[in-house]
Parts: sequence; structure tokens; C-alpha cells
Amino acid sequence: SAGAAMAATDISKLPVVTQELVAPPFLPKHDQVAKGGPKVVKVRMETIEKLVQVAPDGTKMWALTFNGTVPGPLIVVHEGDYVELTLVNPKTSTMAHNVDFHASTGALGSAGLTLVAPGEDVVVRWKATKAGVFVYHCAPGGTMIPFHVISGMNGAIMVLPRDGLKDNKGKSVRYDRAYYIGEQDLYLPKDKDGKYKVYSQPAEGMAEMLEVGKGLIPTHVVFNGAVGALTGDNALKAKVGEKVLFIHSQANRDSRPHLIGGHGDLVWQGGKFSDPPMTNQETWFVPGGGTGVALYEFKQPGLYVYLSHNLLEAVLLGAAAHMNVEGKWDDDLMIQLKKPNENSTPAMDH
Amino acid sequence: SAGAAMAATDISKLPVVTQELVAPPFLPKHDQVAKGGPKVVKVRMETIEKLVQVAPDGTKMWALTFNGTVPGPLIVVHEGDYVELTLVNPKTSTMAHNVDFHASTGALGSAGLTLVAPGEDVVVRWKATKAGVFVYHCAPGGTMIPFHVISGMNGAIMVLPRDGLKDNKGKSVRYDRAYYIGEQDLYLPKDKDGKYKVYSQPAEGMAEMLEVGKGLIPTHVVFNGAVGALTGDNALKAKVGEKVLFIHSQANRDSRPHLIGGHGDLVWQGGKFSDPPMTNQETWFVPGGGTGVALYEFKQPGLYVYLSHNLLEAVLLGAAAHMNVEGKWDDDLMIQLKKPNENSTPAMDH
Amino acid sequence: SAGAAMAATDISKLPVVTQELVAPPFLPKHDQVAKGGPKVVKVRMETIEKLVQVAPDGTKMWALTFNGTVPGPLIVVHEGDYVELTLVNPKTSTMAHNVDFHASTGALGSAGLTLVAPGEDVVVRWKATKAGVFVYHCAPGGTMIPFHVISGMNGAIMVLPRDGLKDNKGKSVRYDRAYYIGEQDLYLPKDKDGKYKVYSQPAEGMAEMLEVGKGLIPTHVVFNGAVGALTGDNALKAKVGEKVLFIHSQANRDSRPHLIGGHGDLVWQGGKFSDPPMTNQETWFVPGGGTGVALYEFKQPGLYVYLSHNLLEAVLLGAAAHMNVEGKWDDDLMIQLKKPNENSTPAMDH
Ligand SMILES: [Cu+2]
Ligand SMILES: [Cu+2]
Ligand SMILES: [Cu+2]
Ligand SMILES: [Cu+2]
Ligand SMILES: [Cu+2]
Ligand SMILES: [Cu+2]
Ligand SMILES: [Mg+2]
Ligand SMILES: [Mg+2]
Ligand SMILES: [Mg+2]
Ligand SMILES: [Mg+2]
Ligand SMILES: [Mg+2]
Ligand SMILES: [Mg+2]
Ligand SMILES: [Mg+2]
Ligand SMILES: [Mg+2]
Ligand SMILES: [Mg+2]
Repeated sequence: SAGAAMAATDISKLPVVTQELVAPPFLPKHDQVAKGGPKVVKVRMETIEKLVQVAPDGTKMWALTFNGTVPGPLIVVHEGDYVELTLVNPKTSTMAHNVDFHASTGALGSAGLTLVAPGEDVVVRWKATKAGVFVYHCAPGGTMIPFHVISGMNGAIMVLPRDGLKDNKGKSVRYDRAYYIGEQDLYLPKDKDGKYKVYSQPAEGMAEMLEVGKGLIPTHVVFNGAVGALTGDNALKAKVGEKVLFIHSQANRDSRPHLIGGHGDLVWQGGKFSDPPMTNQETWFVPGGGTGVALYEFKQPGLYVYLSHNLLEAVLLGAAAHMNVEGKWDDDLMIQLKKPNENSTPAMDH
Repeated sequence: SAGAAMAATDISKLPVVTQELVAPPFLPKHDQVAKGGPKVVKVRMETIEKLVQVAPDGTKMWALTFNGTVPGPLIVVHEGDYVELTLVNPKTSTMAHNVDFHASTGALGSAGLTLVAPGEDVVVRWKATKAGVFVYHCAPGGTMIPFHVISGMNGAIMVLPRDGLKDNKGKSVRYDRAYYIGEQDLYLPKDKDGKYKVYSQPAEGMAEMLEVGKGLIPTHVVFNGAVGALTGDNALKAKVGEKVLFIHSQANRDSRPHLIGGHGDLVWQGGKFSDPPMTNQETWFVPGGGTGVALYEFKQPGLYVYLSHNLLEAVLLGAAAHMNVEGKWDDDLMIQLKKPNENSTPAMDH
Repeated sequence: SAGAAMAATDISKLPVVTQELVAPPFLPKHDQVAKGGPKVVKVRMETIEKLVQVAPDGTKMWALTFNGTVPGPLIVVHEGDYVELTLVNPKTSTMAHNVDFHASTGALGSAGLTLVAPGEDVVVRWKATKAGVFVYHCAPGGTMIPFHVISGMNGAIMVLPRDGLKDNKGKSVRYDRAYYIGEQDLYLPKDKDGKYKVYSQPAEGMAEMLEVGKGLIPTHVVFNGAVGALTGDNALKAKVGEKVLFIHSQANRDSRPHLIGGHGDLVWQGGKFSDPPMTNQETWFVPGGGTGVALYEFKQPGLYVYLSHNLLEAVLLGAAAHMNVEGKWDDDLMIQLKKPNENSTPAMDH
């Protein structure tokens, strides 16, 4: 159409940059405030099927992934930029895949234009018109949609306002670090002995996984693909005085992120930057198929736990990450005035 | 009382209109901006018990309904109007019914004044003092309350501000179309062979349905009463450039509406129009016993899916509707630059 | 450190008050608008383990509590005040306990500084820097965390703005009464005969309770510790014209409070007072590990039900309270124009 031809001409004059995607919880290099006008941002994602361990007890599942990680990489652009995605399905894959970007407009979020069989690739370009963090996920149609999503095939894109983030008063705010936490609900079938089954390829487990899934109660709820993926050596890091942006996505199931010992100073519940953030939240809420973004300035050193505050899900099913924060303790904010066991006071009657 | 007498005198001078209720997803004829001052809006609802098919596999259940549909009809009035409801329980009914309007004030939302046995009718009038979309449902007391609600006996009323809707900047907005989607969670018992049971009358299934319901995991989650009720010939319709209002109610269980390929430009999360709407949402949230309203201007033609973005609920349990949008495709917003399978690029190592 | 020394010096000059905590749903004596500057507010909590009845059918469980009640007492301070907690674990206890205040900053919300074995006590002081209602709960580490929380060991603190609450326009509002409702999800194991088990001490039931808990579906959802704890003689009370503040906490699982026959005129969803409240809500949402606060001016006398509007949870699992409101009925808001059964109108065809 004439409109399309015009748009193509305009876009052809825009600067083109390639964004090297990285594995979560990290973000690709990006500017918080855009330099110059709209760009075409090229990204490449491969649809990788792989057998992965999802819990310390050795439980394995066939993960369906973008670029080999659960969640897929966080893409970062600015409002008004164009995302040019090359989606590659390797010859070694067993299934067709595509991608539905919640941030995009039309064609089922581009899912209708990106279905690639093993050995195929496709290129699609779409305009990021709305600022915020949005889920993307594979959506090949019918029961394949929940199967691919609960198998790990989802991630998120952050569309920053061109002039960066604003607080609840409209004042600019910057983050010193940012982490992307993708929460994944798993529905793993067990054999007759109560052991989690391992299948020889993804399709083999599909009917049984969907049967577990139909009951809506996950066997695991994990951050970044596995129980404990963000603890120990992989714990998140920060320093006192730093403002850390916590970007949380959940492509399928409700969640409620919380930072033990800290807060969400600014919380974009819903994850969209055109809205004023909520403030001082203890726990925020992410609907299934959505995101939540929180900014927190750390005030105290030590261990923090970032989790879903259904504590059964956090502790028994896996939805927890650790964070180590360096710096100086502030006695004004908290102090232990008397150690345990020094002097017992008489207990009251109850 | 004197106050009541005065009020009655005043109300007796108001214009009286009758609103013909229609089956969802459609809305009765109404003005977005009220003409003139407050009115008395007369509506009539019948409590209809009927055996209905709720899934393409032939599953049947006794639906308890207002006016024969699940959900019941959307009533539309303006803030300050009076709703005068005639509630009729046909002689052929097997149960007593009533109605709790969340939008009303006092007497358990009028449930305490409207209980009608088979063959009875009642007239109640209440003032719509709060703008927004509010659930109504049958609430006959005790375990009858959840039984009637999970059997389909719920709907919603939209109380518009007299001067219509406003966006997040306080600017007036109008919708070109509006659809009412009532989401219903069902808890259908199975027999020993794993087949859904059919009962000879509603009361016969009550104990077993509540036993399933006590587990809190529905067997079906449907829009407008049945799996597929809003797909195929019954798909929603719109045109590029139209602003469509999506009115969603869920009388019992949390939900998370999402429009695949589109967005909520303006989202009244909580469904109340006295609050500024959220913007640019991918997915919004409706608490059980609440509503959510989204306005979207369509930018691209094609198929859209409106669903609850727990994809297990949408695809396996039924919580999905289709929408066909006509118009011109906009290549600026999205374009397929390279078709699948034309030129494979070498896959990266992972 | 020098900073700590300085802070200690400053704090030592502040007025010190002792707050006598009381059993929910009641609040300790407090000022809505703070008199004078920041204070040190001393509170004392004991970690009481006790066998309690949780349902009218005689079902019993070992409650782990703060001060003997589920939920623990509501603490009330003002923003900028310091909370000085003495936490006492009686010699008769069988377990170690501590407290994580979501309102505090650092040391896992003070959980890292407050672990007390039976017979020990500890004193910790922390500064209330953020206004709102925040959960506190026991968090002794690992699987003890969900076990103590689902056994009842949680409560809330209300940190009021020094100048009191403000409505959505920034205008001061006061409440005439306030009630604290702590919602608790229970996961009680059954024996082979389908009867709820009673254990000889808390630790005996831990593994089995966590096994039920892992399924994420509670056997009971109760307000203030037991099915029916806030009904009958213990129903909440108010008068027409009074503004009542409903403070709701849920330390583990999502909830959706609703007042049948009334509304949330002002709703702090998320429970934080630095944000403008939502208005006119029928139902609000509390994420697991969070709070929700609603203010309502009663307009009609009679019975109200305050519940979680998943009606299965409210009626079958216990999540409901009653409220009796005295005053004059307002016919303008609602009136029964025709009693049931006087004149039947002919039913329509459907
Ligand atoms: Cu896929
Ligand atoms: Cu999606
Ligand atoms: Cu009914
Ligand atoms: Cu209700
Ligand atoms: Cu404890
Ligand atoms: Cu906590
Ligand atoms: Mg890569
Ligand atoms: Mg840029
Ligand atoms: Mg979209
Ligand atoms: Mg009709
Ligand atoms: Mg009107
Ligand atoms: Mg109401
Ligand atoms: Mg006490
Ligand atoms: Mg004070
Ligand atoms: Mg905290």
C-alpha cells in the first residue's frame, strides 16, 4: 500500500544498531535516556530445545527456549524504536516455533508472521509504540501455546521512554543496576514411583504435561529456569546507595514479588512506564501474562531474598533469588539493642 | 420516615425510562453522555434455570441465570440514576433466587429485599451513586451463594459518569463499540468413568459441585457461558480506527484479561470510572467478585484473541474469545521483512 | 560506627512511649495525626504456641502466634517513629521464632537479628520510614518460614503519615473506627478416615502440613484465626455516618476483600499511604505477603458481610466476617417497592 511504501522509505533512513542479547538476569548494553531519534534495533533469537536440570535433586525437563535460556533474553529499546527480529529455528529442532510480542501491534503480536519450522528463519520488524516491560512468548497455536510457554519459551522486552524513567512526581530517575527475573511455572509429570519423568524429546511429554497443567497447580515455580538459579554464586549483587531496577515477568501465572529486607520505592505495577509508579510497596503483583518493575535504593548491606511472597511457592516450589549487598550498616534504620538470651524477662500470661 | 417520604416525592418527578436488556456480549441501547438529569431506569430480569451445553464435547450443566444467559445482561445507567428492577422467578423454577448488586448500598446489595420463590416477583429501586462497572449476582444465603454463582447466576451493571468516560489526563473519550464478556468458572463433577455428570435438576448436583468447588480448581473457565461461545460465527467484530470498550466481569475468581495483538490503551483496573485509567497495558487484572474495563483503538486488521492470560485456562479450560477486525494493514507498525524458509542463516552455538 | 553513634545520640533524646498491644480485630490506642515529632514506640510480643480450635466442627491445630492471637496484634506508629520491639520466646515453647517486618529496612526485615530460642528474648529497634500497612511474620529460615506463617505467625503494623490519611484529592480524612482483619490460609492434613489430624506438638505436624501446603490449595481460609471468629457475638460494629477503616493483611496468599452491601470509598490497594487511594471499589485485591486498606462511610443500617469474594473461599472455607450497623434506613438509596408474591407478572419466553 501507499502508506506502507511511505513508512518503508522513512524507516530506511533511520540509524540501524544491532543489540547483542545476553542471558538473564543481565541486560544488554543500553542507554537509559535515548541518544537521538528513533532507531532500528536488530536482534537475533534462536529457538533452542534442550534438556535441562530444573532442581538440585536432578529433575530434568525439555526446555523450549529463546537463545537457550529460561526466560529468553531481555530486549531493551526506546519508545518509537523499531525492533527488527531475526528468528532462527535450527535444523536440529523437533518443533515449529514463533513469537508473540505483547509490545507489538497486530498479527497476534507477530506470532502470525513468525512461525518457523526446523531449519527455517524469518525476519519481522515492528514499532515499539508503548513504553514499559512486556512479555514475549512462543504461541504456535492451539494446545502448543500453553505447552511452549510452560516449557520455558518466554521472555520480555523493556521499552524505555526516550527521556528515561520518571518517578511518581514526574521527576527523572535513573537506575545503577538492573536485573531481569523471569518466573516460570512448571508442571512436571511423575511416574508410578513418584519420580519426575524424563522424556526422550519435547513432544513425548506434551500430553502428560498439559494434563498436569490442566490442574493449574505447578510442581515447580522457578526464577531463571531452575530452583536455585539465582542463589549462591549466581546471587544478584548491589551496593548500598545503588538504585536497582528489578524487572519481573511471568508469562502464564500470577505472581507477587517481594524483597525481604527491602522495598519497592517505585513500583510500576503492570510494568508500564506511561503510568505514575506506586510507592513504598512491600509486595507487588504481576498477573499471568504480564510484568512488574520495581526500583529500590539499597540502604543496608547484607543478604536479601527476592521471592514470590506465597511462601509455599518461594520455599517449597523454588520461587526465590538471593541478593548480596555490600556497604555500611545504618544503625539509625535498624539496631539490635539486646542480643538473644542475655536477660530473659518474665513471660506474660496468655 | 420523613426522609424516605421526601425522597419518594422527588423521585416521583423524575423521568422514567425502560431499558430493554439484551444478551451479552451486547449492550442495551444507551447514551455515553447522559441527556438531562437523573432518571429512573426500569429493567426486568427473570431467574431462569436451564440445562445448557457448556463445551463442544457435549458437556451439560444446569445453568442458573438472569434472563437465560451466562452472564446475565449488562445494565447501563448513569451516575445518579435510579435502577428500578422487577425480578421475576417463574413458576417453573425449582429454587428461590435474589440479586446482590455490588453497585448498590445496603441490604446486602439488595439481596435482603429481593428473594423470590418460584412464582413470585419483587420490585426494588436503588440509586447508582458510584460510577463504574459492578458485578451483580444471586446470593440466596449460605452455601446457596457459591452454588448459584458458580452455576452462572451473575452479571454486571455499568454506571457511566453523566459526562461520559475520561482518559488519564481528564479528557473525554468515547467508544465506538462495547462488548461485555462475563467470565465464569465451572466446577463440574465427573462420574466413575471420568465423564461429566448430567443431573435431572439443579439441586441434584449441588453437593457434588460444591465438593469440586471446595478444591478451588475449576474444570472449565468460560466466556459467555460455554467454551467457544465467542468464537467462529459469534466472534467479536471491529474495524481499524474504532475504539472498543471491553467490559469484563468475574463474579467469583481472579482473572487476567489480555488481547493478543492489541492492548489496553486505557484500563480501568477495578472497573471504577472515578479513578484515572492505567495506560498501555498488555494484561490487566480482575479480582474475583470484580470487573475490569479496557478501551482499545484498533490499529491493524486481522484476528485477535481476547483471553485470560493464564494460557492453561485460556486454551485447556476455555477462557478465550475471538475478534475479527477489518481494515488496512499498517506496515509501519509491523512488517514481515523475510518470509520463513527463504534463506537459512547459520545457527549460533548455545 | 560514627554514624551509628550519632544516630544513637539523637534517638536517645526522643520521647519514648509504650504501646499496649491488643487482640485483633481491635487496634491499640493511637492518634491519627501525630502529636509532636518522632517517638520511640516500645512494643512487646511473645511467641506463643497453642492448640486452638479453628472451625465450629472442632478441628484443632497448633497455632504459632505473636501474643496468642492469629493474626498477631496490629502495631500503630507514625512515619518517622522508631519501633522498639522486645520479642520474648517463653521457656515453654518448642521452637525458635523471630520476626520479619516488611516495614523495616535491612537484616531480612529484622529476622536476621531477632531469632530467639525458647527461654530467650531480644530487643531490636527500627525506623518506620514508609507510610502504610505492612505485614510482619515469623521467618526462622528454610521450610520453617512457610510452616510458621501458615501456622498463624503473622500480623501487621500500620505506619500512619504524621499528618494522617489523605483522600484521592489530597484532602485529609479521618476514620471513626478501624478494624484489623488478618486472613489466614490453613493446610490441615487429614487421617485415613478423612478427619483432620490433631498433633501432640507443632513440629509433629510440620512435614504433613507442608505436604498439603505444597499443593497450594488451603483446607481453610479464615479471618482472625478461625471459621466464624468475627461473626455472631464477635461481629464488627458501626453506625450509619461513621467512616470505618478496614485493614486487611494476608501474609501468604492472594485475597480479594469485599463488603456486601457497602464499598471501599477510598481503597489503598497495596496498603501504602504515600499513594493516592482508588475510589468506589466493589472489591479490592491483596497479594500474598501484602495488605489492603479501605475506608467506608456507612449509609445504611443492617447486616453487612466482609469476605474474600471468591465465594467458595468465603462460604466453604471460612473467609467471612459479619458487621452490624445501626442507624436509619435511607429509602433514597434503596427501597423495596413491591414485596415478593404480591402480584406475579407473566414470565417472558426464553
Ligand atoms: Cu515454541
Ligand atoms: Cu501472550
Ligand atoms: Cu439464584
Ligand atoms: Cu458479591
Ligand atoms: Cu515462629
Ligand atoms: Cu515476608
Ligand atoms: Mg544471543
Ligand atoms: Mg535507543
Ligand atoms: Mg499486544
Ligand atoms: Mg430481557
Ligand atoms: Mg441515562
Ligand atoms: Mg456493594
Ligand atoms: Mg500484648
Ligand atoms: Mg505517634
Ligand atoms: Mg521489607
